[in-house]
Amino acid sequence: MFTELNHCFRLRRRPTGRVTEADLEYVEEPIPAIGPGQALVRTLYLSVDPTNRIWMSEMRSYIDPVPLGAVMRGIGIGQVVASEREDFPVGAIVTGLTGYQSHAVIDDATDEMPYAVLPEPLPAPLSMFLGALGHTGITAYLGLEDIGRPQPGETVVVSAAAGAVGSIAGQIAKARGCHVVGLAGSDEKCAYVTETLGFDACVNHKAADWRERFDAAAPDGVDVDFENVGGEIMDHVMNRLNYGARIVVCGMISQYEASSGENAWGGQLSIGQLIMRRASMRGFVVLDHADRFPEAIGYLAGLLGEGKLHPEETIVDGIEHARDCLNRLFEGSNRGKLLLRVADAELPVPATEVAAATA
Amino acid sequence: MFTELNHCFRLRRRPTGRVTEADLEYVEEPIPAIGPGQALVRTLYLSVDPTNRIWMSEMRSYIDPVPLGAVMRGIGIGQVVASEREDFPVGAIVTGLTGYQSHAVIDDATDEMPYAVLPEPLPAPLSMFLGALGHTGITAYLGLEDIGRPQPGETVVVSAAAGAVGSIAGQIAKARGCHVVGLAGSDEKCAYVTETLGFDACVNHKAADWRERFDAAAPDGVDVDFENVGGEIMDHVMNRLNYGARIVVCGMISQYEASSGENAWGGQLSIGQLIMRRASMRGFVVLDHADRFPEAIGYLAGLLGEGKLHPEETIVDGIEHARDCLNRLFEGSNRGKLLLRVADAELPVPATEVAAATA
Repeated sequence: MFTELNHCFRLRRRPTGRVTEADLEYVEEPIPAIGPGQALVRTLYLSVDPTNRIWMSEMRSYIDPVPLGAVMRGIGIGQVVASEREDFPVGAIVTGLTGYQSHAVIDDATDEMPYAVLPEPLPAPLSMFLGALGHTGITAYLGLEDIGRPQPGETVVVSAAAGAVGSIAGQIAKARGCHVVGLAGSDEKCAYVTETLGFDACVNHKAADWRERFDAAAPDGVDVDFENVGGEIMDHVMNRLNYGARIVVCGMISQYEASSGENAWGGQLSIGQLIMRRASMRGFVVLDHADRFPEAIGYLAGLLGEGKLHPEETIVDGIEHARDCLNRLFEGSNRGKLLLRVADAELPVPATEVAAATA
Repeated sequence: MFTELNHCFRLRRRPTGRVTEADLEYVEEPIPAIGPGQALVRTLYLSVDPTNRIWMSEMRSYIDPVPLGAVMRGIGIGQVVASEREDFPVGAIVTGLTGYQSHAVIDDATDEMPYAVLPEPLPAPLSMFLGALGHTGITAYLGLEDIGRPQPGETVVVSAAAGAVGSIAGQIAKARGCHVVGLAGSDEKCAYVTETLGFDACVNHKAADWRERFDAAAPDGVDVDFENVGGEIMDHVMNRLNYGARIVVCGMISQYEASSGENAWGGQLSIGQLIMRRASMRGFVVLDHADRFPEAIGYLAGLLGEGKLHPEETIVDGIEHARDCLNRLFEGSNRGKLLLRVADAELPVPATEVAAATA
């Protein structure tokens, strides 16, 4: 039925440091035929997330490691192109764990998470359902809403401020009337964070005097730390916490590549400051909160409509670049949400209500 | 008026590692004469606490560092021996920041914390108001009550389980129907923790196979970690957290002596587990919660009355041993609350209601 092949990445070895071909192999395979209770999805966009790096490791995590030999797990958006399911008709746009592949099979018996059909009409361009209006934006929203709880006038710090989640977290905090200080890895990114995203300040943590710059940018201390990085940046922030400060532990990207030996992670030195500042730290995983997605998407779509949310995307064409994209996250060379455009929809896509939302 | 001298310790240098004579000097000085608004207290018992070590350092803390040259700060119990204050009559038993000295002056203008007069009749022996019924017991109670919130059947881990706070925290958790696992630094301490204090298990973290022993003692994972130590012990516990686990950050004794160079502290490697386990961590300082002391003391006195609280004390005679006592905390050679008996009361002490409570 299909003359094309399934373009996919299989996990061959658990990487240390950057992901290589020996770790994540690109292969072309026959597209599986579907049977009863199944539907075939053509992947349109694939989300490239730091957490993918956790899934490749044996780190004790919130989800099982990807088995060696299996197609790499990933969150995607696709279109149903063949179906023996009434709930997933041909043409439907769906989101779920498509994996790092051009064609995925929906099957309740094996899916690690249920697929969802996107609403019609779509309130924004497709790609945004993996970014600002997808798990990325929802992560930023829930982290602030449930753990950070920033009050107007408080100082909110966001690490990886030019990244997918950080860029949105900071904009939400700005919309709530906070003094928002970002941390990012280049002057160019910092300029983007302040000029385009509207943060009050952004400190390049690669500058020699970044600690002094940070202190100058956060003269009243830190009430909320939306933490995506960990390590020495977080240690400095922890030493600037105000009484009763809240740390949203969203990500620890500085740790994900670490292993033993020369890649060993230095660890967090300033945990004792939680005592000194009566501060709290809490971790969360967006996938736990599917019941809150409508609330979150409603809020984010509202911000978008008010022009208070700039949903930056870095879109790379072609699934064959997945490995390089994954490494880019750790090299710090992308801005906002990093996505792979895997294919264009062949069948009609539901109308987009706010087609120009990203403009 | 007084022919005796004030026996005191003055901070001369901020210590690194063990406290030496060059850091904390023992001196004998004239006892100050009191004036209007002042009272003179003869110290009876002095509490030796790990947090004293923080106060000697320049670590950013919940209270200012002790200034160089000043008498070392400490929490004591004493008896008023001369007074120009109606609220502190001669003979009254008081508790407050007496400092590491045999005679302290109560003066609202300079006291960092207000003194309190102990109730009459005393519900327990004097020393216990620095231990099980004092800031030590209250710390254990509030940490569990406000942050740990253990439910019956949950697994509660307590590090420094034979120590002042840990020993009480574990007994409270037992009284609440939890499975309680201690960690301590010798087989002898562990035997004491299980046999005398009634913990379900205690693991000697100096044993080569302590990780395996810990896992066997906590087969259902960890719901609450009452953390007094930090470092690699805490890292292992963090890798055994259950979903939604709570870490009470009470102390980080493994860090307090650390400085730069060879004494550097390794840091906490497993903070990312907060994400994986949707866990939280919160620090607190008992001195913030003076309004809760009656509630806490009421609960602890109740446990004591029911025979569910063994209030172990290590009492050393003579304030001249203060420096050694402070170092003992870090050498792990004491059990339960470590106190100095500085003097016997010369004037009548209010009657003790439960004189045999410690028996």
